[in-house]
This record gives sequence, structure tokens and C-alpha cells, in this order.
Amino acid sequence: MKPFVFVNVAASVDGKISNERRVQLRISSKEDMERVDKLRAESDAIMVGIGTVLADNPKLTVKSDELRKKRVLEGKPENPLRVVVDSKARIPEDALILNDEAETLLAVSKKADLEKLKKLQEKAMIFVAGEERVDLSELMEFLYHIGVRKLMVEGGGELIASLFREGLVDEIYVYYGNVIIAGKNSPTIADGKSLDEPAELELLEFKKLGGGILTRWRVKRKRFN
Amino acid sequence: MKPFVFVNVAASVDGKISNERRVQLRISSKEDMERVDKLRAESDAIMVGIGTVLADNPKLTVKSDELRKKRVLEGKPENPLRVVVDSKARIPEDALILNDEAETLLAVSKKADLEKLKKLQEKAMIFVAGEERVDLSELMEFLYHIGVRKLMVEGGGELIASLFREGLVDEIYVYYGNVIIAGKNSPTIADGKSLDEPAELELLEFKKLGGGILTRWRVKRKRFN
Repeated sequence: MKPFVFVNVAASVDGKISNERRVQLRISSKEDMERVDKLRAESDAIMVGIGTVLADNPKLTVKSDELRKKRVLEGKPENPLRVVVDSKARIPEDALILNDEAETLLAVSKKADLEKLKKLQEKAMIFVAGEERVDLSELMEFLYHIGVRKLMVEGGGELIASLFREGLVDEIYVYYGNVIIAGKNSPTIADGKSLDEPAELELLEFKKLGGGILTRWRVKRKRFN
Repeated sequence: MKPFVFVNVAASVDGKISNERRVQLRISSKEDMERVDKLRAESDAIMVGIGTVLADNPKLTVKSDELRKKRVLEGKPENPLRVVVDSKARIPEDALILNDEAETLLAVSKKADLEKLKKLQEKAMIFVAGEERVDLSELMEFLYHIGVRKLMVEGGGELIASLFREGLVDEIYVYYGNVIIAGKNSPTIADGKSLDEPAELELLEFKKLGGGILTRWRVKRKRFN
């Protein structure tokens, strides 16, 4: 059993989530950020890859006071669980995602340094699965086991590609902001290796939002390759 | 003076125009291919980069008999002029884009091999501009001079990025087909180097088409960098 897994990502019209220097760019709009905050508040956990933590140092908490209060009234923690996929435990100890505003689960592989894990243990729950890289299927089972039914994945491109490769994605939201970034080496929505066969999607929803377009797709036939 | 320049490209939801092996994938839909054929028939010239010629060997002619007839009735050639941007004249002499179904202009830089150009001259007009790389602004002026008022650019990602970098694009159509391709090394809508500042767009049009979404954007502030 695994949670319902959906990806949410904001990209340029040409599919980039940042430029080649990994500088954070304004891709999203105010309207879109409100939508994302709402999606976070409705999720049991928010997942990101270590690349995103190193590049953007996000907190991944719910921004709206109202939405956090609503969660508490529903008997949930103020913020969803934060999950970092970090095979080699490269996360800096002062990363904002390890602050005390929410619980954090650090998913690592057996390659992760034990000494570092001992230190990180004070700030996050540690989950070990996989030899060199985090076993994502096992991680999903574990998340389901601890009560996560709705998991939001916020990137980056490496993690998203791995989740698609392993057939673990149910839906993907892409907000295309009204910019062209370009760059052969700019991070994109789905990086890693290209899928042996493209994952087929079904369009569920699309609308103008801010200056861009919000699209929502269901994964039709999940790839297992 | 330059022609009205619009880009048309079909990409996956994650912005890829092919996978990392550059295998041609079904991204577009029947409905979208009909739309593209109509856009071609309405254009004075169709431009591609040499990478696309080498990868896909396209003919870039109008597929519909009816649309070709319509062009002839309007006093135009059956097919628009084909323009290949090929700085080093790498085009194979038997490339389909050099066949006799339409006129072809080969734009090269001063780096192009003269012997090869002599041979290619039998199959295409040759235009030389730029030291190492084709000077795209000069090419645009030349195209305008020979009567091209509406230029359609069909890729690939390197040429599209260069045109954006030089502020030569007026509009871009992106058809997002209902697939995820992934791949750090897969060609995308705009490759090359990332723009120093993103090019800002304005959304003109969007609609569901086949299984995907057709979007059309105007370039708001053209970058000159």
C-alpha cells in the first residue's frame, strides 16, 4: 500500500524549474502560490529531493495562519510531515527544513554516513532503505504505514523522474509561468535518465492562473522499468 | 526590418521534444499535426536548426493537397521556403529538406567548408553571415529583403534558445502532449545557455487539443543580451 502521490511543480513555458546557475527565479504567481499553500495544507506529507533543499533551502510549511488553524481544528499537526529524500545524508544541519515548525523525516540509503545520521537524529526521524539510493517504493510503504494517505511531491527534477520511473506518481500539477528560461543544463520538471517509454497522462484540468496556466494530469499507465 | 517570427513546438508535459537518445517520439496528436500543417501553409518560410535536420530528417513541406493548392491559387509557391540554420554546413547532401518539393535556403557561417558549399549550391541557395555561427539578425534581415513576412520556426531547442537570446521571437506556440519523457540530457524546447534574464511572455490562447494542450504566447519584452 502506498499514499496517493501527486507532484506539484512550477516551470517556465520551456519546462525549466530554474536556470543553469540554479538561481531561484520568479516562475510562479501570487495566485499560484496561494493554490500551492492550500495543496500543502490538504496533504499529510510534503516530499522533496536533497537537490532542492541544497538549492532553495525551503521550509515547506503552510504559509497561511488560517489554513494551519484549520488543520489543528481537524486534529492534525499544524504543518504536514516534511520528507527529504537524501540518499547520502548530504543535508546541512542548519537546513530550514529541519527547523521545529514541523516534523521532518529524512530518508537515506545505507551509504549515508552514520556519524552524520547520529547528529541529524536530533532534528529528524531517519528512515533507511536501499543500498546506494533510497528505495522509493519502500519509503512509500513506510509513509503509508505511519498514516500518510496524501503525499505532495514538490521536486526537484531528479526525484520526480525517479518517481515516474518507478511508477509511483498518481497525478501531476504543472503550473507554466509566463517566461522562457532556456538552458541545456537548466533543471527541468523531470531530469534523471529519460524513461524507457514515456509515461502516458490524461488531462484532468487546465486554467489560466496569474500570468500562466495551471494544468493537472493523471498518470494513465504507470511505468515499471 | 525582420519578418514576424513565431516558434511552433510540440513537447512533453516536462518540456522535452525528444528523449536523451533523440529517438522521435509521438508527442503531437493528429489534431495538432493538422494545425501545424495549416500554420506551415500560412507561412512564407519555415526555419529549423541543423540538429533537427540530423535527428529527424524532416521534409518540412505542407502535407495537405488542398492547402498547397490554395497557396498556388494565391500566387505563392506550393510550399513555403525552407530555411536551415547550419553554421558549419553539416547537412548531408541527401537530406530530405534538400529535395525538389520546395526551395531551400541554407544559412551558414564563414566557418563552413567551401567545397561542401559548392556541392550544396546545386540543391539550395546559400546565405553566409557570421564568423563562427550564423548571424541570426542578419539572416532575418535577408529573409525580409527577399519577401519573407511570416517565418515559422520549428526547432530545435538550440535554435529556439538562440532566437530568444537575440530577441528575435514574436510569438511561441507550445503544444504540450500528454506524456512525461524525463531526462537531464533530453532536448528541450529551449536549450543552449539559459537566458541572462528570462524572456517574459503574455498568454494569448490556450485550449485542449487531442490529448494535450495548445498554448500560444506573445513575447512581451524581447531580450537583447
